[in-house]
Amino acid sequence: MGRTSDAKEKILDAARSLIELRGYSALGVAEICKAAGVPKGSFYYFFASKEALALAVIDEHWAAQERDWKRILGGQAPPLQRLRQLFEATEATLRSGQRSCGSVAGCLFGNLTLELSNQTEAIRARLQEIFDAHVEMIGAVIAEAVARGEARVADTRQAARSVVAQMEGQVLFAKLYNDPQRMGVLWAGCLALLGAEAPAPSEVAVGL
Amino acid sequence: MGRTSDAKEKILDAARSLIELRGYSALGVAEICKAAGVPKGSFYYFFASKEALALAVIDEHWAAQERDWKRILGGQAPPLQRLRQLFEATEATLRSGQRSCGSVAGCLFGNLTLELSNQTEAIRARLQEIFDAHVEMIGAVIAEAVARGEARVADTRQAARSVVAQMEGQVLFAKLYNDPQRMGVLWAGCLALLGAEAPAPSEVAVGL
Repeated sequence: MGRTSDAKEKILDAARSLIELRGYSALGVAEICKAAGVPKGSFYYFFASKEALALAVIDEHWAAQERDWKRILGGQAPPLQRLRQLFEATEATLRSGQRSCGSVAGCLFGNLTLELSNQTEAIRARLQEIFDAHVEMIGAVIAEAVARGEARVADTRQAARSVVAQMEGQVLFAKLYNDPQRMGVLWAGCLALLGAEAPAPSEVAVGL
Repeated sequence: MGRTSDAKEKILDAARSLIELRGYSALGVAEICKAAGVPKGSFYYFFASKEALALAVIDEHWAAQERDWKRILGGQAPPLQRLRQLFEATEATLRSGQRSCGSVAGCLFGNLTLELSNQTEAIRARLQEIFDAHVEMIGAVIAEAVARGEARVADTRQAARSVVAQMEGQVLFAKLYNDPQRMGVLWAGCLALLGAEAPAPSEVAVGL
């Protein structure tokens, strides 16, 4: 069984790398198996279809990202600082991906949304759940900031959607210009969206 | 020659529709020619490659969009109202696309950025020019609003980038949830990003 589950992990890893590099539609099962170094028969042992594989890639990526987001957004720093830390962690992830493959791959979920959400309902539904979770988690932090008088928004959920939209838009630019530093403006944009002032330097030091 | 240029237009139209529905990578030249109702030989008479076709589709789409943006953003309404009109026109375009093909296709340039910008440098460069133009045009309107005391931003270009990022992010949501109404929050987000108040109702009436 050790070797079997190893093959499944190899397929998932190869598929995620290839999807990040070239999208989903451009890939064939044979190419994924070749990159994973497993025979094609293994593929259909683990996955009923290429779509089933894409859903497994999405789930695995989200499981890891959700852990990261919960750690950062559930931390001890003041709420707005936690949002800033999330932006910095996102920029660091883009930068590390750029170092390893030469170009910024962007956000797997944003990429697949624009590539596939109007083509397969199963993938659309899964991506909706993930973006709903993004909005929920960021909304909770905004609500904390509002309760502390550090943000002024009319509608917390709408503000959270705007922050997530701003993140996705800036990641799009980071990919387009192959420049993770594009994410640097996210913090100022987020403060504006939340009617917030930049925290005092001492608070920043505590926060980071 | 009439019939020849007709074939080129047919290929461009079919390619744009197919790219909006299914992205670029999923398409083959044979399928595009079949949808266009032209023999495959015609394709290579007009286009050196599938990439050359994609560039032509981008150019044609941008020529039409640039005309629309110039008309709206160069209009007589107060500057912030012109931004609002641009958001409303964008939502109307998404809605009309949804009516004709059943789902929101999103922004052709955003879609291709996430699908292709890290794969072909020619397409990346063309999309960069287009998004640079978006930022330039919106930046000019923001500068007008700032000069009239209707917006407060530290850096006009950075604010324009944030507004364009916000548009792309909300279009991503409109596609994900197949709901053009998602664009409705764009106006409130834009006002927040620009440190602007909602114009008085009488001004809105004049603006629209």
